[in-house]
Amino acid sequence: MQAVVITDGNLEIQERPTPEPGPYDVVVNVHAAGINAADLLQRQGFYPAPAGWPADIPGLEMAGVVGAVGDRVGEPLLGRRVCAIVGGGGQATHCLVPAEHLIFIPDDVSWAEAGGFAEAFTTAHDALVTQGHLETGQRVLISGANGGVGTAAVQIAHALGAHVTAVTRTNEHHGQLRLLGADETITTGEVASIDRVNLVLELVGAANLSQAQNILAPRARIVVIGVGGGSRVEIDLRFIMALRATLTGSTLRARSREEKADVVARVNQSLVPRWTDRELRVTVARSFDLEDATKAYECFAESGKFGKVVLHVDQ
Amino acid sequence: MQAVVITDGNLEIQERPTPEPGPYDVVVNVHAAGINAADLLQRQGFYPAPAGWPADIPGLEMAGVVGAVGDRVGEPLLGRRVCAIVGGGGQATHCLVPAEHLIFIPDDVSWAEAGGFAEAFTTAHDALVTQGHLETGQRVLISGANGGVGTAAVQIAHALGAHVTAVTRTNEHHGQLRLLGADETITTGEVASIDRVNLVLELVGAANLSQAQNILAPRARIVVIGVGGGSRVEIDLRFIMALRATLTGSTLRARSREEKADVVARVNQSLVPRWTDRELRVTVARSFDLEDATKAYECFAESGKFGKVVLHVDQ
Repeated sequence: MQAVVITDGNLEIQERPTPEPGPYDVVVNVHAAGINAADLLQRQGFYPAPAGWPADIPGLEMAGVVGAVGDRVGEPLLGRRVCAIVGGGGQATHCLVPAEHLIFIPDDVSWAEAGGFAEAFTTAHDALVTQGHLETGQRVLISGANGGVGTAAVQIAHALGAHVTAVTRTNEHHGQLRLLGADETITTGEVASIDRVNLVLELVGAANLSQAQNILAPRARIVVIGVGGGSRVEIDLRFIMALRATLTGSTLRARSREEKADVVARVNQSLVPRWTDRELRVTVARSFDLEDATKAYECFAESGKFGKVVLHVDQ
Repeated sequence: MQAVVITDGNLEIQERPTPEPGPYDVVVNVHAAGINAADLLQRQGFYPAPAGWPADIPGLEMAGVVGAVGDRVGEPLLGRRVCAIVGGGGQATHCLVPAEHLIFIPDDVSWAEAGGFAEAFTTAHDALVTQGHLETGQRVLISGANGGVGTAAVQIAHALGAHVTAVTRTNEHHGQLRLLGADETITTGEVASIDRVNLVLELVGAANLSQAQNILAPRARIVVIGVGGGSRVEIDLRFIMALRATLTGSTLRARSREEKADVVARVNQSLVPRWTDRELRVTVARSFDLEDATKAYECFAESGKFGKVVLHVDQ
């Protein structure tokens, strides 16, 4: 197979052995693969892939057609259009995936859109619902709302009946965010001025959270998913105590196979029907060919894009 | 009745009308009343009593004999030896308490000990178990372990089968803490050197937590109950994300009547049997007469005491 390989901090296309599925795995013939902040960190030598995943092939998500199925997989999966989060190795023509991690793509969704679905929507749903306990009618603040996870989170929170305040560095994408379901759109400097919120989905880190901690409602939750805007933040513990607030955070990548299967099951149950109805859509900022991975990473690193950057893979 | 009253930041004994029980309340003839950090804050003009409680009579806990019972209370409570957390008004000869908030005192426990039980043990149990999800075999770090809540928490965590590391500012009380059940005793400066913990019960605040955040195990919880050692702390969100850790905190005082009843029910079920068996004891540092409340508050404010400061009330 062909794969993007990290070599001394550079990205090269190399020929690698095509993976064989283990008894409970499938191999997907990849048509598209999204880019995430973790890929850029991994290229810089940080955030290595967890054990059991390709160490030097980046890519935390991909979409394609199931091309090989392990001999203990019970379901008829061969030929199904699927996408998935993976621990690494997504940016290649073939990708090994545990069968229970597959998300089933609606018929009329493009490969580019499917390639950018898994990581963003799985992360956003896990953070908003499973960790953040978001309920209908509650107020949620989503920082970095213009990115891949942000545009997913705005749509999911809106679909759940929450009041959504989308925060971005500039007001460039405010109109698009309202079309996705944001009730209120503000810039980072305006955070302290809005009504109190029940949930902060923190995709930026310290730069936003230092403000957002001042507008927490009683029993508010802060769920930290991204720290591109700084990781060290001064928290006033009096607010935490007086409001009985909670600060938590996570990454999906490091979770066990069983934990990821639980997360995926919730996505197939809760999000895929809404994706099929086009209530949820993946916003693709730009797509690049696999061979142009370096350009795609540069595009991802620029601020101010709206939605996902996706690699297109020929089959 | 006689009551300690806050007047322009001073404490005076004043004559006040004895409370009448509402239909679901009792009035307790008080024999002892513990002092808590909240009383000192209230005396300084901070942390006012919640609505419905005496505004200028301090005291978040007391013990005594039920002397009057509301006409809708179903149980035969008259004459029972009880203690309770209250929203205020505990430091008086008589105190109004919702009937469902009563904790029943074992027969052979002294009034001084009973007067210091409710706030410390209720707070510690709620923080360790209900908020902190402490489980048998887990490792817990308890800062400020020599205080009222700390000495309670060390005993409760030990009784639950946790490995307890007790942290104090000096090593003065380490022997006593080991007698209460601490497996390990350290000073604040040594926090960063111990094995990773599943739970931090933070009774001191920033001074301890700035160190403790470096020794969290995966899925660790930090529960903040006290901030006498500073409330503003720099948190590294990367630790929170990578470990899927949680920072939370609370006060008991502001909770609703129903929520407090839930907390008290857990104390009557889980802690009173162990108190009856003398597996749990209230460590009384010093007791003072109600008339000497000013001296008692000064004693409370000094660092280095071991356990509770309690007011003795003549009946």
